[in-house]
Amino acid sequence: MMSINIIIAGPRGKMGGEAVRMVNKEKDFKLVACIDRKNGGKQISDIEGLPEIDVPIYENHEQCFKEINADVFIDLTIPESGYLHTKSALNHNMRPVVGTTGFTTEQIEELSELAKEKGLGCLIAPNFAIGAVLMMKFSQMAAKYFSDVEIIEKHHDNKLDAPSGTAIKTAELIKETRDLKRQGHPNESETIQGARGAVTDGMHIHSVRLPGLVAHQEVMFGSAGQTLTIKHDSINRESFMEGIKLGIENVMERKELVYGLENLL
Amino acid sequence: MMSINIIIAGPRGKMGGEAVRMVNKEKDFKLVACIDRKNGGKQISDIEGLPEIDVPIYENHEQCFKEINADVFIDLTIPESGYLHTKSALNHNMRPVVGTTGFTTEQIEELSELAKEKGLGCLIAPNFAIGAVLMMKFSQMAAKYFSDVEIIEKHHDNKLDAPSGTAIKTAELIKETRDLKRQGHPNESETIQGARGAVTDGMHIHSVRLPGLVAHQEVMFGSAGQTLTIKHDSINRESFMEGIKLGIENVMERKELVYGLENLL
Amino acid sequence: MMSINIIIAGPRGKMGGEAVRMVNKEKDFKLVACIDRKNGGKQISDIEGLPEIDVPIYENHEQCFKEINADVFIDLTIPESGYLHTKSALNHNMRPVVGTTGFTTEQIEELSELAKEKGLGCLIAPNFAIGAVLMMKFSQMAAKYFSDVEIIEKHHDNKLDAPSGTAIKTAELIKETRDLKRQGHPNESETIQGARGAVTDGMHIHSVRLPGLVAHQEVMFGSAGQTLTIKHDSINRESFMEGIKLGIENVMERKELVYGLENLL
Amino acid sequence: MMSINIIIAGPRGKMGGEAVRMVNKEKDFKLVACIDRKNGGKQISDIEGLPEIDVPIYENHEQCFKEINADVFIDLTIPESGYLHTKSALNHNMRPVVGTTGFTTEQIEELSELAKEKGLGCLIAPNFAIGAVLMMKFSQMAAKYFSDVEIIEKHHDNKLDAPSGTAIKTAELIKETRDLKRQGHPNESETIQGARGAVTDGMHIHSVRLPGLVAHQEVMFGSAGQTLTIKHDSINRESFMEGIKLGIENVMERKELVYGLENLL
Repeated sequence: MMSINIIIAGPRGKMGGEAVRMVNKEKDFKLVACIDRKNGGKQISDIEGLPEIDVPIYENHEQCFKEINADVFIDLTIPESGYLHTKSALNHNMRPVVGTTGFTTEQIEELSELAKEKGLGCLIAPNFAIGAVLMMKFSQMAAKYFSDVEIIEKHHDNKLDAPSGTAIKTAELIKETRDLKRQGHPNESETIQGARGAVTDGMHIHSVRLPGLVAHQEVMFGSAGQTLTIKHDSINRESFMEGIKLGIENVMERKELVYGLENLL
Repeated sequence: MMSINIIIAGPRGKMGGEAVRMVNKEKDFKLVACIDRKNGGKQISDIEGLPEIDVPIYENHEQCFKEINADVFIDLTIPESGYLHTKSALNHNMRPVVGTTGFTTEQIEELSELAKEKGLGCLIAPNFAIGAVLMMKFSQMAAKYFSDVEIIEKHHDNKLDAPSGTAIKTAELIKETRDLKRQGHPNESETIQGARGAVTDGMHIHSVRLPGLVAHQEVMFGSAGQTLTIKHDSINRESFMEGIKLGIENVMERKELVYGLENLL
Repeated sequence: MMSINIIIAGPRGKMGGEAVRMVNKEKDFKLVACIDRKNGGKQISDIEGLPEIDVPIYENHEQCFKEINADVFIDLTIPESGYLHTKSALNHNMRPVVGTTGFTTEQIEELSELAKEKGLGCLIAPNFAIGAVLMMKFSQMAAKYFSDVEIIEKHHDNKLDAPSGTAIKTAELIKETRDLKRQGHPNESETIQGARGAVTDGMHIHSVRLPGLVAHQEVMFGSAGQTLTIKHDSINRESFMEGIKLGIENVMERKELVYGLENLL
Repeated sequence: MMSINIIIAGPRGKMGGEAVRMVNKEKDFKLVACIDRKNGGKQISDIEGLPEIDVPIYENHEQCFKEINADVFIDLTIPESGYLHTKSALNHNMRPVVGTTGFTTEQIEELSELAKEKGLGCLIAPNFAIGAVLMMKFSQMAAKYFSDVEIIEKHHDNKLDAPSGTAIKTAELIKETRDLKRQGHPNESETIQGARGAVTDGMHIHSVRLPGLVAHQEVMFGSAGQTLTIKHDSINRESFMEGIKLGIENVMERKELVYGLENLL
């Protein structure tokens, strides 16, 4: 098998740095260039903390795509530049794997048409942790048979928002298959406010915050005599790299845009 | 909606008794007769522990199927009689839902052809706990993306065999989708024999036995930075009734035999 | 060893019935009489669901204590009669083991003085599940070293109140040893109200309610890089019997009243 | 409060580096020197990865203890030098906090006598994770009331030995309080060898190994109708720093040697 040539945008970010290291380690992948807001003209080896490899850095993405020939383009930047990079990569016949969140529906539609026109695979995924994506998918499937469900998500105590984005997304996915139901005893009451958690469509979400935790979620279904629990524990960013690898292999074979890792699984 | 008329074989068994109570409670179901090795000519109300309902009991299943007209026949007996009952029920144009385990492949094939010929739905399922069946199905799906997996099953300390039948069945299903791999460090060693559990195809199964437990299993997948766990807890036989209900509704709509609840989900 | 003679009040209640069966099974214990609001003059064997034993039932407790000589008196009734029974039992030189909740502080003090005066052991315990009591005790001990703690309690969905009594009691015990702290990020916010649970003294309690659950609680402590979790799962009333047994053995050796099983452990 | 002056041996090790950073961050602690096999005459700021502080490094511990006055000496090296350092520190009137494992009984006794003679606090602890130490302590306490117990330890799949040292230590501590018992059904049998785990004194230990795990252990006790579980999850070395802090505060107040963090808690 020939190796896959890859350009990465955002090498100094946390996710980007992990991706540089991952691509560098995999024997079927080859890092051929990086796109960065700074450091144009330097090499990856010039940046502290990144591998000692002579891979050129470009500040201008158009120039990069013109001068360097790659099969796959990985974007781990921010929505504004992410959108421009992705469009340009497709126009230069490269297959994008995009972990940037926050694209508008219009942007996704436009990129989708462009990918189809070009006959190129393209993946835009807000979450690359395969385990988290499977947790959501299985929860949606289980909700067809269990209409009683509660979500317990646990994160480190530096997290600002509760519930987590993943918990809200999970509840939305469950809603599509679950028979609508207000859970719990009809006359139940809270002797201390908040005990029964956040309520959305009759489902309850509980947010635990403690030092020593990283990112964890369990989705618990119950019916007479049994419970079914689907649980994901993530302890570091490495968990995203398996999903990015899968995305790279996948865009090489597809001829259109896919939104969400769940639609590859 | 017209109610579904139902005959149950095995009303004095633990599962059979639960089924009698469940059918009696559901407003869309109607119990019209029972088949029992004893108590021919009596009523269900004559048997201690069963509901106070005037439903006739037959010892001879042929006579029962001739005299009583039903839509669905539920068998919760033993393989020998289960096979004869099921065949006869199909010949009398009733749809069987069979929880009896231990049928031979030949018997299943014969019943399958008969169901197709008659155009009748028929379900034979060794496990009616929807949660357990989903746990196995999800585990099989997850194993495509995670080749490292361990099974921890926990049961009451009166259980004789280890690992449990469900754990072995789960491992077999996982094997069909998992990349073959010997897990753990290649040089790992047990300082006390048995620590790493039972090994089957490179996967490890651990059997915990304690008073205070009933029937529990967790299937744990791991890859760099993350774990995904699918867990089922069963505390009593009520957990099977949801599956039997689903089976009844399902055989009313199908025109062939299905083996295993997982193939309905 | 001579067997311990025992009188039980409340034999038709759920806890009382379990206690009758337990005392009847243990070879060192002997049931010599029962006190019941009804059935005076009958035998235990006359009551459906109780063992076939010829043990007399009294409606009047004074008469029972006068006519029947016992070492230990077990009360599983209601506070009003529980208080009168306990006082009278002590006056007749029997050692009370009381599972009735709701005694006033004055009543407990009065009974405590009476027990000391008589030199008799006496145990009043609102919770006889040894596992639950140890969970609370260990949580109180752990809170000396971990000031970040969240309580997650899970019960069947017929439960009316949230948080559970055990969760509130656990939080009160933790408060005695924990450094006061408002947990979570100072700027954290709930995008759906209730997500962070019930807050008491800066600690958070989450109440999960699902069919298929019975009575479960986990107390989770966190500090940099680690979490410690103490978890109790109860699936039926049998879990109280070990505590009652321990109480019986204990009052035989003590010479004063103890309140709470935790003070025996 | 005056700050506590501290010397650390082993600043380039993983634990030692964490300790340097911790002492540097705490406002009541002051790092005054380090002992290292290399880098004599340099400063901590000269070593990559350590804080930018001007703290002198000594290769000779005697010289260090003579020239630098400290209250507490922390040793995170290896047994041979650990023993020599600790003895010398006591002779120079400093209080040792020692995380080095593998001291002989004779060495511990000798250091214990020296500490008593000098009237100085000294702590030697093979495990500084407070959560792990509490897990073991609580398990030992619970085993008085529950003689059925199984240990499930889960680690990353690079671990060579099974069961883990912590699991074996936990079993030894439990043995001291537990009524001896062969657990499980007397006629239980393994259909796949190893299913029931490692057996030690009738207790069972199960070792799970998966990528995505770090260091986890749960100790599960069961009796009729209930289970009690004590669980510790450690995700990085930071978890040891709370224990070292506690040790520092503690040796300032004591006048003798203590072996094991559990004896401070």
